[in-house]
Amino acid sequence: MTTSTVRVRTRDGGYPVLVGVGLTSQLARVLEEHAPARRYAVISDDNVASLHGHPVMERLRDAGLDASLFTFPAGEASKTRESWTILTDEMLEAGFGRDTCVVAVGGGVTTDLAGFVAATYLRGVPVVQVPTSYLAMIDASVGGKTGVDVSAGKNLVGAFHPPKAVVADTELLRTLPRGERAQGLVEAFKHGAILDAEYFGQLEGFTGDLLEADAEAAADAVQRSVELKAAVVSEDEFEGGYRQILNFGHTLGHALEAASDYALGHGSAVALGMVLEAEVGERMGVTEPGTRERLASVLDALVEPVRGLDVERAVPYLRADKKVRAGRSRVVLLRRIGEVDPGDGWSHEVSESALVDALTAGARAS
Amino acid sequence: MTTSTVRVRTRDGGYPVLVGVGLTSQLARVLEEHAPARRYAVISDDNVASLHGHPVMERLRDAGLDASLFTFPAGEASKTRESWTILTDEMLEAGFGRDTCVVAVGGGVTTDLAGFVAATYLRGVPVVQVPTSYLAMIDASVGGKTGVDVSAGKNLVGAFHPPKAVVADTELLRTLPRGERAQGLVEAFKHGAILDAEYFGQLEGFTGDLLEADAEAAADAVQRSVELKAAVVSEDEFEGGYRQILNFGHTLGHALEAASDYALGHGSAVALGMVLEAEVGERMGVTEPGTRERLASVLDALVEPVRGLDVERAVPYLRADKKVRAGRSRVVLLRRIGEVDPGDGWSHEVSESALVDALTAGARAS
Repeated sequence: MTTSTVRVRTRDGGYPVLVGVGLTSQLARVLEEHAPARRYAVISDDNVASLHGHPVMERLRDAGLDASLFTFPAGEASKTRESWTILTDEMLEAGFGRDTCVVAVGGGVTTDLAGFVAATYLRGVPVVQVPTSYLAMIDASVGGKTGVDVSAGKNLVGAFHPPKAVVADTELLRTLPRGERAQGLVEAFKHGAILDAEYFGQLEGFTGDLLEADAEAAADAVQRSVELKAAVVSEDEFEGGYRQILNFGHTLGHALEAASDYALGHGSAVALGMVLEAEVGERMGVTEPGTRERLASVLDALVEPVRGLDVERAVPYLRADKKVRAGRSRVVLLRRIGEVDPGDGWSHEVSESALVDALTAGARAS
Repeated sequence: MTTSTVRVRTRDGGYPVLVGVGLTSQLARVLEEHAPARRYAVISDDNVASLHGHPVMERLRDAGLDASLFTFPAGEASKTRESWTILTDEMLEAGFGRDTCVVAVGGGVTTDLAGFVAATYLRGVPVVQVPTSYLAMIDASVGGKTGVDVSAGKNLVGAFHPPKAVVADTELLRTLPRGERAQGLVEAFKHGAILDAEYFGQLEGFTGDLLEADAEAAADAVQRSVELKAAVVSEDEFEGGYRQILNFGHTLGHALEAASDYALGHGSAVALGMVLEAEVGERMGVTEPGTRERLASVLDALVEPVRGLDVERAVPYLRADKKVRAGRSRVVLLRRIGEVDPGDGWSHEVSESALVDALTAGARAS
């Protein structure tokens, strides 16, 4: 088994993202090396707990580590201040002190929620992330973002709390439903689209293997995506300028996702957002013609194309976007596949009407 | 008016603590210099709001700043996740974005609570602290600790979130009840006791003026205490080793405070804790004879001596202390006034029975 290590730099030094097939068999060793602690609080949702949480617990205990499992109900609906409160209080009740390390085993909801528990427990204890989905391996494992949803919106309460290490074992992806694999892979295509044309081409070629959770192919993709995202985040840890290129597809994607009351998966929304933002870029003469077509072709094969798009509903969400000011929005535009147009500080000011035009065109095409 | 500036170093560079008489008249200028933001969210309890919050608001608006006031019910009972939730949601409702700065105007409850709101709002926005009590000026303004109480104990949930600046206007102390002034000054005596014999002597000489909230005398004391604490915290931001000298008086103080169900003020508890820990030190031959006597003499004049101490009730809390392991506790011991004995990593291992003996002696003396 080969393990590759991608180092993410942070102001505190940084942390390794370890990627490999079957890597969780070595979790105890990884914890002892990167996050030595007197006690380990393993946090999983109740679904992942039975698939991976209990086996992980057994291995940690076999290795002589003091580990306890804390679970919460699976689903985005659990990513709340209430779940955070319950997990925190359970850990306090169980007497976990400052010499604790939180181990988050699960998808993005778990890594965000358990990360926020760790960020605020006794003013902060270390966390090690063990992502079990493509999205969490590729996206959530780099950047140190933790947090919860509130009624005003998603991820509005949280903290930057980089992990001590991330352990991405691509064998765990086998238990992930195929639809969720596809949703997560959208972010991999995004990384290729904004930064690496060769990687984008490889993803096109191996989409089938990746969807089948071929662990070796998945390890290659996770490694490359993490390298690309880590390079961006290391440049700009606090989302000032360059980091916003990661928002490609997200201005329109988020509006569509919110307009659907989150019935639309995040991956599907971002996929459509990328296609529509390529449309915007081509109309403005910024993006190479044919880019939209190539994105649409591969992304439509990956996630089901969105039908019956209600453009009218998305417009108010576009206006509410944090990146919108005075009817003009900042949108990341590609120059071509593999390259973002530098624009004016890595994004372009686009009028709301141009965005609505693109949404309308997208609605007609779908 | 003279303003003195003490710089607190942190891993992010650091921040200034500005100390002066009437300094809040210049708050708008300070905000523009140290924490430029599109909008300011001023947070006060409803008591301090009428005394200082509204005048501050008027000045900020007169200076053309976009400022809104958010209040919560006064008292330690408000330092909860519930208050944090309400304040956060009110700010979200009012549309405060990432270009927000929180301005905390109040005592330690407010600086801790508003600081935690800032630490977690949209994953962290800047905070400027405007302490209105001795305790908040002297103690809470340095170190970047924010947080709330939970049923398992005080300050168990929170974050390290250093402010952009602290504005300590000692004129604001005039509205503070005399009893609270005394409680806060205990921490100033602690700073003298552990680090600066000359300062301790000055405090002894000016206790009357400080209790009367003489603004000039208060400014001198706040400045010196902040300098001393800042020097310690800059050495050791995350409470590894040296910083624990600030815990002098707190091992026994916390146990007594908890045993009284927090009926005993924090200052009174720490004052008694300092006296008793000096007793422990003298018995062990670590602390110069007469130290207990000198501490008791000045502290008894400051805060009412504790009567009818129930030692039995304090013992379980001593055992629950984070610093206790296997019946032996780590206690910071003075060598003499103005100097901590380096011991074994800035504290000494003391048996539980020695601590109980000191508690019992304290109970007899009181």
